[in-house]
Amino acid sequence: MNYILSLVFLSLVVCRAQPRVRLEVQSALNLQQQAWNEGRIEEFMQYYWNHDSLRFVSGKGMTLGWQATLQNYQKKYFNRALMGTLAFTIVHWEILNSKTCMVSGIWQLTRDQPIGGRFTLLWKKIKGNWKIVYDHTS
Amino acid sequence: MNYILSLVFLSLVVCRAQPRVRLEVQSALNLQQQAWNEGRIEEFMQYYWNHDSLRFVSGKGMTLGWQATLQNYQKKYFNRALMGTLAFTIVHWEILNSKTCMVSGIWQLTRDQPIGGRFTLLWKKIKGNWKIVYDHTS
Repeated sequence: MNYILSLVFLSLVVCRAQPRVRLEVQSALNLQQQAWNEGRIEEFMQYYWNHDSLRFVSGKGMTLGWQATLQNYQKKYFNRALMGTLAFTIVHWEILNSKTCMVSGIWQLTRDQPIGGRFTLLWKKIKGNWKIVYDHTS
Repeated sequence: MNYILSLVFLSLVVCRAQPRVRLEVQSALNLQQQAWNEGRIEEFMQYYWNHDSLRFVSGKGMTLGWQATLQNYQKKYFNRALMGTLAFTIVHWEILNSKTCMVSGIWQLTRDQPIGGRFTLLWKKIKGNWKIVYDHTS
């Protein structure tokens, strides 16, 4: 009985949270994209969890920690031309509860040599702010 | 007050569930690996959600649905030699609640031309069985 009540309770919490979570995380992604397109990598990085347990998975393997992730971005995109113009397209949402969601999408960098790919982000609301705690980019 | 109670309740549910979730999902991954290594792709696929909303993200983009995902595997690995020997290494768990977790890891195929990469899997317990509902493999 406790188990069934837990499930009903969890379902209610998730259903009620859905529109607000989408709105807030979409807004964070828009601000992140805008920061990138104005050349501000450090501001772009504010939407990543500033913690040693941030995980960023890419072709190179897994980078651990906010500082190391920032350094990777700074090395790879060391001038404005390389940063190009970033566009995110969200293709799928998984709202897991009012403080956790997974977002799947496409990223595209428009520049002399355009690149792009797919991302899977795990967002958590930490101290009132949505932060990416896990990023798999390919 | 309701909000704080919800958070406490959710935290308790997640903490109590952690060891069981890991054990069950690890067991499903072991069985999946074993099915692959015995050449049974359809059995390997039993650990994916048999639904049109299963999502599989790879270099090719996003494949939608269980049947299309199975066909992709069958096309790419059409004989036993191509299937090689699969090994999963889990590098990170995110237990989100007693019925949802995200698993991040490394996959390696030992064969004449070995390949491998990274995966991010979203698992959900559906009708008592753990199923992958989202797979980002790169």
